Amino acid sequence: MPDSLSPLQFAVTYNLMSMAVATLAGAAIYFFASPGVGKTHKPAMLVSGVVCAIAAYHYYRIAGSFEAAYPLVSGVYTASEVPFNNFYRYADWLITVPLLMVELIAVLTLAPKEKRNLFISLVFLSAAMILLGYPGEVSTSPGVIWTFFVLSMIPFLAILGILFTRISANLPLQAPKARGLVNLARWTVVVTWSFYPIAYILGKLSPESPAAFTALQAGYTIADMTAKAGFGVVIYLIARAQTEAEEATATQPVTTSTPRNAGIPVNAG
Amino acid sequence: MPDSLSPLQFAVTYNLMSMAVATLAGAAIYFFASPGVGKTHKPAMLVSGVVCAIAAYHYYRIAGSFEAAYPLVSGVYTASEVPFNNFYRYADWLITVPLLMVELIAVLTLAPKEKRNLFISLVFLSAAMILLGYPGEVSTSPGVIWTFFVLSMIPFLAILGILFTRISANLPLQAPKARGLVNLARWTVVVTWSFYPIAYILGKLSPESPAAFTALQAGYTIADMTAKAGFGVVIYLIARAQTEAEEATATQPVTTSTPRNAGIPVNAG
Repeated sequence: MPDSLSPLQFAVTYNLMSMAVATLAGAAIYFFASPGVGKTHKPAMLVSGVVCAIAAYHYYRIAGSFEAAYPLVSGVYTASEVPFNNFYRYADWLITVPLLMVELIAVLTLAPKEKRNLFISLVFLSAAMILLGYPGEVSTSPGVIWTFFVLSMIPFLAILGILFTRISANLPLQAPKARGLVNLARWTVVVTWSFYPIAYILGKLSPESPAAFTALQAGYTIADMTAKAGFGVVIYLIARAQTEAEEATATQPVTTSTPRNAGIPVNAG
Repeated sequence: MPDSLSPLQFAVTYNLMSMAVATLAGAAIYFFASPGVGKTHKPAMLVSGVVCAIAAYHYYRIAGSFEAAYPLVSGVYTASEVPFNNFYRYADWLITVPLLMVELIAVLTLAPKEKRNLFISLVFLSAAMILLGYPGEVSTSPGVIWTFFVLSMIPFLAILGILFTRISANLPLQAPKARGLVNLARWTVVVTWSFYPIAYILGKLSPESPAAFTALQAGYTIADMTAKAGFGVVIYLIARAQTEAEEATATQPVTTSTPRNAGIPVNAG
């Protein structure tokens, strides 16, 4: 942790944290209502809403902890005795990252057995990824830091492997309009989740630099907003596309397969 | 930032901020329920509600920051070491201004491709307008202040251009009762949004004047209440007018276009 931060560094870090509270809480409200989403896809939207609500709570705490850690002393934001509580982030990820995988699998149309297997694998791998990252985060020993970095990368790469093999294999089962969105959803995972190991490396290489600290905190916050609220919007669009396709299938037999004059006795007599 | 504020200046500024919390939170609750609005127009109303909820959060923070920045010292509200955090406003605008455009487009009846194009153009232009305004807001160099003012005005004028050409072209697609309201909605944008560049100029010309500071903060707050809660009411009235027209159309074929004795074998025999 750096000894002090400039007013601009403090402002960028704090205000992005506050903006995350607003963005995530706003997204949660929208996902809870999820207008235009049918019954089958409501669970996915509720999980998206819960993820954003939990993250909004954590950002409220994170912003408060950051304010307490860097009070303004004679014009400089100076590190106080109270440390900045970075564990809020891990607590958040430990709950929300497996739930982000649940959202994605829940919104897809899959064979029941395949769905269950994907739920189990992705929840297990994403929880393992977060848990294995934590010992390295809190350690100051390079051996521990880099061993756990590598250990945590293994489940991350396994998750990406599943997204680009087993999800691809099931793309034809999705509504045609949803397929491009499913692809967008997994690329959102690749891009936003890749930020975390990069931030970890940066933070560990120069732990005392105010600029590196600011870049890292700003990056985590932007990545969290995108990986949760942004990802949730993609899940919402998938849920709407799947709902529309299901409604079209449900009403089609009634309008097309019924003979034109069914029930009307034309030449009755 | 002025060194001190009179009791009246402090009271006007602070109480309008607190009033904004109440107005925006109240509006959010009504928009979430949006009685009388059909399924198709619920997304527009939910976005209106989310905009007002996010702005209520920011005004709660703004009022708190203003109180901390100007504590009462021997009968005078004197600037403390803690600066008034004006970035809450930018964080708020960065999220809510693009969403105000989403509300407007979502409530209109448009061809799907036109709708998507308008969403993309207006969200992009409104985010660019806010982002380009920020460097000028935080700078003290006249070159930066006025360059970014001009840069930020370009997307603003482009937005007004779209509202008065492409929205006009699509007016005939709207329910007859909604057309006047769509016109009111865009004039609400013109009038309320024009306040922001005027406030920017005033604030930059006399940054230390307590009267100018009060006028600017009061103006921002009134403009935000009108542009979000007031605009949301207009969107609500449009959503109701469109819903009524759609319900009338949906029931019409049954009463008017069906031949009087359809299905009844009149001369049966």
